[in-house]
Formats: sequence, C-alpha cells, structure tokens
Amino acid sequence: MAADPAAQAIFELTSEFPGKISVAPATRDQHANTLSVIRGQSPDAVIWPETVSDVQQIVGIAARHKVPLIPFGAGTSLEGHVNAPLGGIALDMSRMTRIIGLNADDMDCEVEAGVTRRQLEIHLRDSGLFFPVDPGAADATLGGMAATRASGTTTVRYGSMRDNVLGLKAVMADGTVIETGSRARKSAAGYDLTRLLIGSEGTLGIITSLSLRLHPVPEETVSAIASFSSLQSACDAAIAALALGSGLARVELLDGAAIAAVNAASKLALAAEPTLFFEIHGSAASTRDLATALGRLAGDFTASQFNWAVDADARRTLWQARHDAFWAIREASPGRMPVVTDICVPVSKLCGSVEAAVADSRNTGLIAPIVGHVGDGNFHCVIMVDPSDADEMSRMQGFLDRLIDRALSCGGTCSGEHGIGQGKMAALAREAGQSLNVMSAIKTALDPLNILNPGKMFTVPSRT
Amino acid sequence: MAADPAAQAIFELTSEFPGKISVAPATRDQHANTLSVIRGQSPDAVIWPETVSDVQQIVGIAARHKVPLIPFGAGTSLEGHVNAPLGGIALDMSRMTRIIGLNADDMDCEVEAGVTRRQLEIHLRDSGLFFPVDPGAADATLGGMAATRASGTTTVRYGSMRDNVLGLKAVMADGTVIETGSRARKSAAGYDLTRLLIGSEGTLGIITSLSLRLHPVPEETVSAIASFSSLQSACDAAIAALALGSGLARVELLDGAAIAAVNAASKLALAAEPTLFFEIHGSAASTRDLATALGRLAGDFTASQFNWAVDADARRTLWQARHDAFWAIREASPGRMPVVTDICVPVSKLCGSVEAAVADSRNTGLIAPIVGHVGDGNFHCVIMVDPSDADEMSRMQGFLDRLIDRALSCGGTCSGEHGIGQGKMAALAREAGQSLNVMSAIKTALDPLNILNPGKMFTVPSRT
Repeated sequence: MAADPAAQAIFELTSEFPGKISVAPATRDQHANTLSVIRGQSPDAVIWPETVSDVQQIVGIAARHKVPLIPFGAGTSLEGHVNAPLGGIALDMSRMTRIIGLNADDMDCEVEAGVTRRQLEIHLRDSGLFFPVDPGAADATLGGMAATRASGTTTVRYGSMRDNVLGLKAVMADGTVIETGSRARKSAAGYDLTRLLIGSEGTLGIITSLSLRLHPVPEETVSAIASFSSLQSACDAAIAALALGSGLARVELLDGAAIAAVNAASKLALAAEPTLFFEIHGSAASTRDLATALGRLAGDFTASQFNWAVDADARRTLWQARHDAFWAIREASPGRMPVVTDICVPVSKLCGSVEAAVADSRNTGLIAPIVGHVGDGNFHCVIMVDPSDADEMSRMQGFLDRLIDRALSCGGTCSGEHGIGQGKMAALAREAGQSLNVMSAIKTALDPLNILNPGKMFTVPSRT
Repeated sequence: MAADPAAQAIFELTSEFPGKISVAPATRDQHANTLSVIRGQSPDAVIWPETVSDVQQIVGIAARHKVPLIPFGAGTSLEGHVNAPLGGIALDMSRMTRIIGLNADDMDCEVEAGVTRRQLEIHLRDSGLFFPVDPGAADATLGGMAATRASGTTTVRYGSMRDNVLGLKAVMADGTVIETGSRARKSAAGYDLTRLLIGSEGTLGIITSLSLRLHPVPEETVSAIASFSSLQSACDAAIAALALGSGLARVELLDGAAIAAVNAASKLALAAEPTLFFEIHGSAASTRDLATALGRLAGDFTASQFNWAVDADARRTLWQARHDAFWAIREASPGRMPVVTDICVPVSKLCGSVEAAVADSRNTGLIAPIVGHVGDGNFHCVIMVDPSDADEMSRMQGFLDRLIDRALSCGGTCSGEHGIGQGKMAALAREAGQSLNVMSAIKTALDPLNILNPGKMFTVPSRT
C-alpha cells in the first residue's frame, strides 16, 4: 500500500484536508462517468477544494506523487470526460461557488468555477442582465462549461463559451496560478490563453474562476413553431430565417421521430413532421416584425402550420416538445440507454447531413431521433441502444463513424459542443491530422507529468 | 562569409528560389519597421513564397541554419513586429493572394494570407456579403491582421479577427502544415489552435491561408455625429448608446484636440469638442428608429449638435473628420512623428481613462489627441514627438508607462488591437504575470530553435 503513489497522495491529502476528501466507494462511483454508455471508471478518491490555494496545494501533492487529477464540475458531460482511466483523484469544484463580483455597467461578472448556470441565473434575476450560454437541461457548472467549450441553443445569436468568457484564473500543473484575459472587451496582448484553456477539458490547467460577459435581458421574447413536410423544407427554412437578421436567438429542429416520441410521452398532438422552434429577442416592435416575417417565410417553405406567442405561458406551451425532447425520446424506448452524439457542419450542408443520418439509422436498424441547434449547423442523434446487445452496439459504432466521416468530408467537425473526452479520441485524431501533434506538444510542455485529466482527448507520449 | 548561418541560408534559398529572393539594401530596408519611432532593423534578405510548399521549404532551410524568419504582410504594424533584431529573412506574403473559395450559403470564404482587406472587399462587391474587420486606413493583409488579432471600428458589432476567422492553415517551425478549425460555425474538438495562432504575431507558425466568416451587407447604413461639452458626457452617451441594442456598428470618439486638428487640416468648422461618430446597420425601419433614439439620447447628454444621414455622400461628409483624423493630426505638427498607442479598458472605465490621458499629456507638455473605438473601451493617443528631442522622448515614455499602468489597474489591457511586437514587451510582462511563463513554454515547445519572429512579444530562454 505504501508503495502505491495514489495511496500516498491520498494519505497526505487526508492529513492536509480533513473532512474535504473521501474514499467511500459510493462517492467515488458518483464521480465516474454515468450519463453515457461509456463505462464508468471511478477515481481513487474525491476531494473538495474551497479556495484557489487549496487547488494549488492539491496539485502540488498530486504532482509530487505523479497521481492524476480529474477536475469535476457537475458530471454532466457525455463523452466520459470525468472518468479516471488511470485512477487518481477527482477534484470536485462544488464548494467553489462564490459569485465574486458583478459589474452591471460593463455587463460582466466574475464567478468561481463551481457556480452553476442556474445559480448565476438566480443571482442575476433583478439585474436586467443574463448569461446566455444554455447547454440545455443539465445544470452544469460554468467551469465545466468553459472546460468543454459548451454552447447550446442560443449560440446562433450570443456565441458559445468561447465568446462569452472574458478571462479566467487557473492553476497549472506546476502549481502556478495564472490569470488570463482582462475585463476589457478585446485585447491584442499575448497568446490567447483564455481560448486555449476553454475546450482543453481539464488537461492543461484547472479553471478556478471565470470572468463572464453578460447581455441585457431582451425587452421582449417571442417564440414560434413551424412544421414542414420534409427535412429539406425545414432546413431550407432555417437557413433562410438566419438571413432575416440578428433577432433570432434560437433555431431548433426536431425530426419526425423526435416529435412522435414527444407526442407519446407528453401527450401532445403535433404533426409528426420535421419541426422548427424559434425564439426571437428584441424590442416589442422588432420581435413582432420578425415573427411576422418568419410566418411568411414558413409559408414560402410550405409549412403545414406556424404559431407564435409572446406570453410566457403560451411560449412554454409552444416550446414544450423541444423542452421534453430528450426525456421523451428515452421514455419511448424503455430499457434502452441514449447515446447522445453531436456533430456540426457548415449550415449549407445541414440538410444533407441530417437526411443521411436519418437514412443511415433506418438502414442500420437503429432508433435515432434528431434534435438540432440548426442555426449553427449542429445536431444530435439520440441513439437508443441496449448496451447488452453486442450487435446493436457494433451497428451504433458504425453509424457514429459514418456520421463523423460525412461531417468531416463536408468541412464540419466531429463535435459541435460535447467535446472529445474518451468517446471521440479517434474522431479527433481523424479531424485534427497534423494539428494533433501541436496539441500534444502543448500538453507535454504545460503538463510534463501528464497529471491533468490524463487519457482524454488524445494520447500523449508515455508519462515520465 | 561561409560561416555565417544567414549567408548560408540565403545562398541555398537563392539557388532554390531564383528570382524570388532579394538582398538589395533598399528592399531589405522596406521590410523593416517604418511606421513608428521604433528604430528599423532590416532583415538580411527578403523572400516571396508563392505556395504553401514554398513556405515549407523556406522554413526547412531556415531551421537547418537556425536563421530567423519574419513573416511580412503589408508592413503596417505599429509596434515593430516586422523588425529583424537578430537578422534573418523576411517572408513577404504579397505573392500569396489567391481567393481560394467563396461559399455564399455559409457566408464564408477562404483566402491566402497575402490577400489584403481591400482586395477581398472588391472580390465580394456583388456577393451581398462583406468582411467586417476594419483596422482603418491601412490596407493590411488578412494574414497579418490574423497574426496581430486586429480589430478596429466595427468590433462593437462584428467582433475582431478572433471572432471572424473560422480556421486557418499554417506552416509550423518544424515544417509541418496544420489546418485548424473547420467551416462549421462552432466546434468543441480539441485545443483552439485557431485562436492560439491569432495574435501570436508570427512567433508560433506562418499563416498561409484563412477561412473567414462573412456577414450580409446591411439593407441600410445610417451615419450620425454628436458633439458634447465634456468627455464625461460623450463617454456616458456612448455607454448609454450601447444599451440601445445591436444595431450600432461603429461608435468612435475624437477629443477636442483631434477635432481642432481636423478643422485645420480638412477645412471643417466643427465645434472643437469631444465628438462621437456612429454608424448603424440594419433594415430601413430599424436604422431610422435607432437614429431617432440616438438623437434623443444625445440630447439627454446635452449634445450641442446631432446630425444623421442615410445617403452615401452625406454619410461620408458626416464622418470626414473621423476618416481624416490620423492624417490631420500629423499635418498639425509638421516635423514631428506620431506614436500611435493603444489601450483598452472596461467600458465603465473609459471616461476616467481618457480624462486621465488628456490631463497627463497636458501636464507632461505632450501633443496627444485622442481617437477612440469607444464602443469597445479601446482608444488611441496619437502622441506627436520629435524623435531627436531626448527629453520629449523620455516624457513620452513616461506618459505611455502611466497610460498602461492606469489601464491595467482598472482591469484593462496594454493593447486592444495593435499587439505587442517590440514596443510593448515590458507592458506584456507587467500585464501577463505568471501567464508569460505559459506563453514562453508554448513558444519553446512549438519553436524550440526560436526561428519564428524572434525578439518579439517576450524573451524566450536563449536559442539552442
């Protein structure tokens, strides 16, 4: 036992952080991947830092023993980011939840990495400001969202974490604390370490706080829904809608299979056809103008129905199918698990990509309804599988590989927002080509012992 | 001679690239810094690659002889980026000017690094699309603009090069070619090497082509101008204007001294007061609504005049003072040279920063009119100096140091858009703190021989 580096590190950490570390099996298992078919791999221990200097000290001890550290936000990632394939210690950020400051004049705020999206939403309630990045139902931490370059339904108007983080504080593998960026809206001062850490999935540094860009709550929000007889019409309408200007805050697609699932689970009676969900932000006049223009446009693309609403309850009703989609798709296939995959293509290639995915799932005998952030060319196939059915799992893998191949061959990417983790390492290697060596060189330069979330994104030369 | 590595590299390059390389002193001097008071340092030779594989071959020869390579776009940088402090070879990109593709549906295009802003503008003329990043009068190359993370007058609405480059191709110091990003609007696949290379000032790789995001030409453009009795009122009005919504495409400030210079040089009769220049993009109705709202707002902040125009000629007249500002400020101080410095602060700190700069220049006896992209909190002091006056140069340096200190102490940055080059290395060190070690580690990992634009941004451990 004494020779085991993890045990030694845990011994030291227990004496330095009494009451802040656990080796209880249930706790360790809760910190492994649980939301996908990727097998969970529990860490050897879980520790809850409360300050930046806690994080520094933990990194120091882990480095001395060359023991992996796996930053853990809310554990909502879908590609096995929080697994511990080489063992080590999960660094649970859920006690670093201070909202450090809010600057209403500059429309920015500073938060610790463990603050969740919902906590921030509540904090901002009366400020007239909001943080727009909305990855969906999961109440992710903002640190985790930055680490995975999260985006979601509002990216079409407000951008992703890449665009809404002004700067951040991080503890690097050698224990130094860096502060990147500034509160200025733009900067040409040095390498863009903010953007380098965003999307680095905990492999380059441990984000401890973030400075976020906020946006004014729109004077008015209008929601709308339109059904189409074909994916082609729906996608063409979505592209045409994008040209109507910057008022569109969300443009979402459910395919017929997804609508059918929602009808069943939520007792709705929508036409089981490709359906677009819009949200418009702006002044009272501009949102109504845009809704009217959208209605006309939906007609041009032969929508079978178009409805819009301003009142909050009516808006919720219109969007209910979208809100319930993931839950309903699961409900429709009891006993199966969802594989929620994620690709992103140039907008003009969206229709072809979605159609090819639908045809492929049909040919392969897979259940795979589609939910898309189509304003960005990003869509998810929710493949419902029986993990104990080896043949189905193999067909699922073939489907994923072809989905990614098609995305890459039309100028797209293997992940729009879920990231690489363990699940898409082969896909990243295909996509990045020579760039992977550059990523690997950066990783090795900044974390030579490979202690920060090892075994994710790409394989680095073996640990020293 | 044979022992001199640069001479050996030039000998080899001359035999590999006959007619594409020059050692003529006049040509070499044209490729040193010329637009600022930073002393020009000429390269040993200038080479004009025509293809990516030319660049690869040149990098291979330079690496073998450990000779510096200095990427050169249009030479319009203001901080000595193109100087050759350690000698070496300027890589002039002006023969790589192909527009590789235009995808109107996806609103993107791909261009070689030597394409200038104006060349692209002409190419897009009938497409209904435009590339928004506008660093001002200089007809910079798009590769150079990416390398320095350029921005300019339209950033408030459209973002900087950071936001408008989807991906790029670059030759790294080891001769490999990488392609970063994709044509998808967003991606969570791997480290953000696109953003790492943007703003790296040629020190990490040589950008050979870029995939750019384009935007629809607005249906209508409205220009407006408003004069205020104090900087405070002008800055407060600018901040209040930002809250009017996303239609504002440009918000520029000239202080009273800048207006006085333009009145003299361009025979205008504007009130020599702090003056805001607005540009609004949108539909015919929305631009007029916003112009009306701006006029009301200008009145609230006691503007002494407010005028707006839709017609192109009338718009040009309204904005003439802004367009002529840099030229007019130079004209007003014959025999002196401009030091165009650049800081960026949180918008709420803008007024205090500008007022402090005006007071400091007065106290220090310097001529330093102010031109600002105030929508971003970014402003320039155009300090007119006599380089032969050692005392004035020393006062100028003190002024710059204090300007940067004040920017950093209020959460800002030492450069909003001009970058670091040679001129702001000390400032970057102050701003970045521990981050500088991270930047240095990345530089050393990717360019261990330090051949890519050495002596810029920060000092790296001595060359191997």
